[in-house]
Amino acid sequence: MALKRIKPGPRLSRIVVHNGTAHFAGITALDRSQDFAGQVQQVFRRIEEHLADAGSDKSRLISVWVLLKHPERDFAALNAAWEAWIPAGEAPARATWKADLAAPDILLEMIVTAAVD
Amino acid sequence: MALKRIKPGPRLSRIVVHNGTAHFAGITALDRSQDFAGQVQQVFRRIEEHLADAGSDKSRLISVWVLLKHPERDFAALNAAWEAWIPAGEAPARATWKADLAAPDILLEMIVTAAVD
Amino acid sequence: MALKRIKPGPRLSRIVVHNGTAHFAGITALDRSQDFAGQVQQVFRRIEEHLADAGSDKSRLISVWVLLKHPERDFAALNAAWEAWIPAGEAPARATWKADLAAPDILLEMIVTAAVD
Repeated sequence: MALKRIKPGPRLSRIVVHNGTAHFAGITALDRSQDFAGQVQQVFRRIEEHLADAGSDKSRLISVWVLLKHPERDFAALNAAWEAWIPAGEAPARATWKADLAAPDILLEMIVTAAVD
Repeated sequence: MALKRIKPGPRLSRIVVHNGTAHFAGITALDRSQDFAGQVQQVFRRIEEHLADAGSDKSRLISVWVLLKHPERDFAALNAAWEAWIPAGEAPARATWKADLAAPDILLEMIVTAAVD
Repeated sequence: MALKRIKPGPRLSRIVVHNGTAHFAGITALDRSQDFAGQVQQVFRRIEEHLADAGSDKSRLISVWVLLKHPERDFAALNAAWEAWIPAGEAPARATWKADLAAPDILLEMIVTAAVD
């Protein structure tokens, strides 16, 4: 069964598709000068771009793990933005935990899988 | 290939089944007034309920990631309870790390995948 | 669809293969007296052994989550070793976050999936 790597680089492929499932590398905001609300919307836009690259869409999310740098401060804002973004009846499995990420100004990261067929 | 969402809500689906694998949302204890031993047993009961909902059982676990709030205190208790619960010869892949979870009184969370066919 | 468990134990199976994907238990260095550079190489060797056990190889990695105890100190060393190890054009999806692990002298853990057919 062929592995399909989308946007492969020396460190990671942005997406690896295997057996009908797309596995995304961890997604963070590219403009880290933005506050949490801005970073969340950047992450959503990047997920949508990845989904389109993989031939999927946000109604086909399987699982999303949400890593938050400051959950005690940002969890409610995450959930409000999230519930506005997720299509009704199509929410993925989700888990959330507190973690420091690869750089101090990254406020969240999402680890995503989605169905592609 | 159809995605099957079990107990979907606005934030998450409790289980998403795709291509023979059930992906569970993160599972924590519902009664967080209990101590670690009580919370572990609650998590096991909820996993068993999810497995039944998905048409699987605890001999069909693929992977379980265990997030502990206080591993230095609770790791031995986790392992004793875990090894009593897992069917002989049928242990999943497992990883464990320390993480603060969505609320301060959540002492552990498990992120589970299981085979459904 | 049969689940295949490789090196099953009472706590975990080192590898669980389902539907063409191998899911590895979290991999850490066995000799924790070594520094970060040494632990990384140990983890790579163990991943290669697991891949061989599963009938796969490092050109078939799907996803690797890297948990680092001291990312602020070790992230650059991780990436240098990683990019030397990953075959050109075959990088998996990757995410990295900071986490304390099951024992204080474990400096990193990798959580891996790979294609087996």
